[in-house]
Amino acid sequence: METIATTDPDQNASAARSQLAIRRIGIDTYRENVAYLHRDCPVYRAEGFQALSKISVHANGQRILATLNVVDDPSIVGCEELGLSEDAFAQLGVADGHTASLWHAEPPASMDALNRKIAGERLSQDDFGAVIADIAAHQYSKIELTAFVVSTHRYELDREEVFFLTRAMVAVGCKLDWHADLVVDKHCIGGIPGNRTSMLVVPIVAEHGLLCPKTSSRAITSPAGTADTMEVLAQVELGIDALGEIVRAQRGCLAWGGTADLSPADDVLISVERPLGIDSPGQMVASILSKKIAAGSSHLLLDIPIGPTAKVHSMASAQRLRRLFEYVAARMGLSLEVVITDGRQPIGNGIGPMLEARDVMQVLHNDPLAPADLREKALRLAGRMIEWDPQVRGGQGLDIAREILTSGRALQRMNAIIAAQGAKAFDYRQPQLGERSFEVHAPASGVVTQINNLQLSHIAGHAGAPKVKGAGVDLCRKLGQPVAKGDVLYRVHALYAADLAFARHACEVSSGYTIGPAQDVPQVSVEF
Amino acid sequence: METIATTDPDQNASAARSQLAIRRIGIDTYRENVAYLHRDCPVYRAEGFQALSKISVHANGQRILATLNVVDDPSIVGCEELGLSEDAFAQLGVADGHTASLWHAEPPASMDALNRKIAGERLSQDDFGAVIADIAAHQYSKIELTAFVVSTHRYELDREEVFFLTRAMVAVGCKLDWHADLVVDKHCIGGIPGNRTSMLVVPIVAEHGLLCPKTSSRAITSPAGTADTMEVLAQVELGIDALGEIVRAQRGCLAWGGTADLSPADDVLISVERPLGIDSPGQMVASILSKKIAAGSSHLLLDIPIGPTAKVHSMASAQRLRRLFEYVAARMGLSLEVVITDGRQPIGNGIGPMLEARDVMQVLHNDPLAPADLREKALRLAGRMIEWDPQVRGGQGLDIAREILTSGRALQRMNAIIAAQGAKAFDYRQPQLGERSFEVHAPASGVVTQINNLQLSHIAGHAGAPKVKGAGVDLCRKLGQPVAKGDVLYRVHALYAADLAFARHACEVSSGYTIGPAQDVPQVSVEF
Repeated sequence: METIATTDPDQNASAARSQLAIRRIGIDTYRENVAYLHRDCPVYRAEGFQALSKISVHANGQRILATLNVVDDPSIVGCEELGLSEDAFAQLGVADGHTASLWHAEPPASMDALNRKIAGERLSQDDFGAVIADIAAHQYSKIELTAFVVSTHRYELDREEVFFLTRAMVAVGCKLDWHADLVVDKHCIGGIPGNRTSMLVVPIVAEHGLLCPKTSSRAITSPAGTADTMEVLAQVELGIDALGEIVRAQRGCLAWGGTADLSPADDVLISVERPLGIDSPGQMVASILSKKIAAGSSHLLLDIPIGPTAKVHSMASAQRLRRLFEYVAARMGLSLEVVITDGRQPIGNGIGPMLEARDVMQVLHNDPLAPADLREKALRLAGRMIEWDPQVRGGQGLDIAREILTSGRALQRMNAIIAAQGAKAFDYRQPQLGERSFEVHAPASGVVTQINNLQLSHIAGHAGAPKVKGAGVDLCRKLGQPVAKGDVLYRVHALYAADLAFARHACEVSSGYTIGPAQDVPQVSVEF
Repeated sequence: METIATTDPDQNASAARSQLAIRRIGIDTYRENVAYLHRDCPVYRAEGFQALSKISVHANGQRILATLNVVDDPSIVGCEELGLSEDAFAQLGVADGHTASLWHAEPPASMDALNRKIAGERLSQDDFGAVIADIAAHQYSKIELTAFVVSTHRYELDREEVFFLTRAMVAVGCKLDWHADLVVDKHCIGGIPGNRTSMLVVPIVAEHGLLCPKTSSRAITSPAGTADTMEVLAQVELGIDALGEIVRAQRGCLAWGGTADLSPADDVLISVERPLGIDSPGQMVASILSKKIAAGSSHLLLDIPIGPTAKVHSMASAQRLRRLFEYVAARMGLSLEVVITDGRQPIGNGIGPMLEARDVMQVLHNDPLAPADLREKALRLAGRMIEWDPQVRGGQGLDIAREILTSGRALQRMNAIIAAQGAKAFDYRQPQLGERSFEVHAPASGVVTQINNLQLSHIAGHAGAPKVKGAGVDLCRKLGQPVAKGDVLYRVHALYAADLAFARHACEVSSGYTIGPAQDVPQVSVEF
């Protein structure tokens, strides 16, 4: 019978426990650390671990938390081995075969704060700091991440908490510094297919002389992000040094943001938000503003589209969201302007990277076929941003933007940016679209009274976008236009037969178009 | 250019798509279907699947949904193979090597209801029916399950919704029928270590003549469940036929419930509730009542312990929970009585299967060392249940129960039940406890003013309970008792050195005991 020891129990335990050999398991568990133990592993049997419990893995002075999966196949992991998924292996950063010891994981430090949030309590700045630091350090399991996302969903967070969350997300990432007072950016909350205004706004405002180092994401759930579309024209994965050089020379760029460095917590949170398909105001504000602040922006123009199938359905909801963005931006010291725009239908004609790149280049070339809605929206956004220039009088921005576009200077600037990033061969007059295609026809005569953003995105995604650059949907009719029965509403392009079949099936479930009397076209009021 | 086809797109797609060979992957993903595709698999590359997305797997006329993990190691899954985790393989039920085709999963039918619940809306009976049917059929990913659990947490569900949830959970499981009007049961909401009253109540009420076919769970997070403790004395995994025979002969049993058949949805929900450590009133009521109704009970005595480290901290909370249980039980046609009991400390002396079995057998043998608190609580519970016998006058139950115990008839009945289930060798006077042990001593003189249920459970769990039957904590002092500095407060028993070290470390973090002045002992009022 011993009396209670005062020596370090970790040492005792390590001595007593079998050491396991680390084995890298080539499974991508997507932002979750997973550890694999054989069911007959003596450590698993003796030490009361349970499937899905969190364990603490110690090796070479490093320590990670991982969720435990139990394995019955010794060819995957043997009885004397500890398997680590790609994420866990990379996090721990020791060699294959290195010995490791296991420990019952103490819960992450912020678990108490998480439980209070689940219980509906308000959290402090310190609480959010602890939660976000644990999330960024991959201490949360998918289950815990989901609990955080759901318990902070909708308007569960008050605006002060959203500020705390934003500040916490900025604190765990890197921050770019452009050594300039005026660093401008624009951002759309998303949900509108084809809405590639950034690729027009950046060359226009850069040509005017504003500093606009635009970093964009790839598509998360949509058929194309700005980075996917720009990638049709140029390299987008640029190192930080190359980026700096391009921005100094061109005043602008259109690069992929590489979210993991600038906003590591966001990168992890998205891994559960995407499969769940939820997008809450507080998380949206914190995610967008933290990334813009990390990217070094001083001024941000934010686009909130409204419409029946947009993310925001009513002016009242848009204004509520606007106020939340404004409150948090002000607390973070970011100059913010919000425009509430028409989100009743896709912008431009193409949906999918190559089709959207075609639309953008048509506008830049002042091509008569260029989609007018994309051009006009981009000009108005650029005009608002140009008015941040102290030399420009209120109301002059739009004219300046239009002159930059029609004179061809916007195209020149875009071509210079493309060349600086590394041009790719692309002829906007003959884009190499997926060669398998089909058309969808009007079932009756009338007027286009609805184009469902969600369904058109869904069809373009099934056709292969954004993975297949030349896949997507090419719209032939827009809202309010008259159609005769049998007219082509849109064409779907795919590269693979299976993708075409998926897309056709989606079209049969719903084409996404409604044809009816002219008075059924929904009206929206905008603040733009 | 094709026009849109009217043929079955599934057929087209299947023809176009490569068929994959199913490979069983020996990974236990614990109630989640996981599918593994190699990153270079043509199906993964071509068809726009993403890590963690849900895919639909079709083979031999069967169809399951699974979450996708991407694999880089061809020895785990090759490019022409589809790996399925043990859960997914069992669900699909076709042979290893069988061909399968993949489809983008349409979301489970109840996803709309889930999203409305996340948004804070009230759900209908049909909604709960759809959600629970999908959960029981393993259609939900862990992320979706967590979203349901968190969005129905706390008092997010109104009492009508809890009734809907309970009815939906009963509807998806099997139901036992004992062909008797009066089928009695008792249940504690949990959280109090050592609280093994069922093993006393069952022989007493069965001896009185009531039908008490008790099915219990194994420990989920605690150091011992009734099934774990009974397993020290007898077999508990009995087939349904054997169970029926024993109950007909003995009027009672103490068997493992095998939750998956009686309450399949509960079994899946627990897989996220356990790692998250949350226990919400609505889910607790639905889980307990659905299992009791499925087990064929007509009358249930429910024990809600209150105390600073119990699940319920105050009389007001306990009464609120009681009313919720009463409302739902009444709607389900179950006769329910609720007692609110003293949950300030563990019941009995032992924590861990073998130590708790010792306590139970001491009481049944009328041993002078038997813990009085366990005996008195069990007698009062049994007394309340005996009064369900129409022949018994109100107030007589306790005396009848005491007579059955002190006369030795309870022990005889217990021995008969043990023999019928299949006795194991156990001498309660000399239990074969884990031979590695240490004592924890009083750091000062005074009175025991707190015994933390959570910390004592934690210590017993780290010592190896319930996996190691002889591991756990043996209490030498209870609340309100005087101690001198250096007195033994409790002993910890373990089988393995590593477990002992884990437990010792937990004791050093906190012993779970507080010594102070007598007036610091917390008072609770009870309804019992």
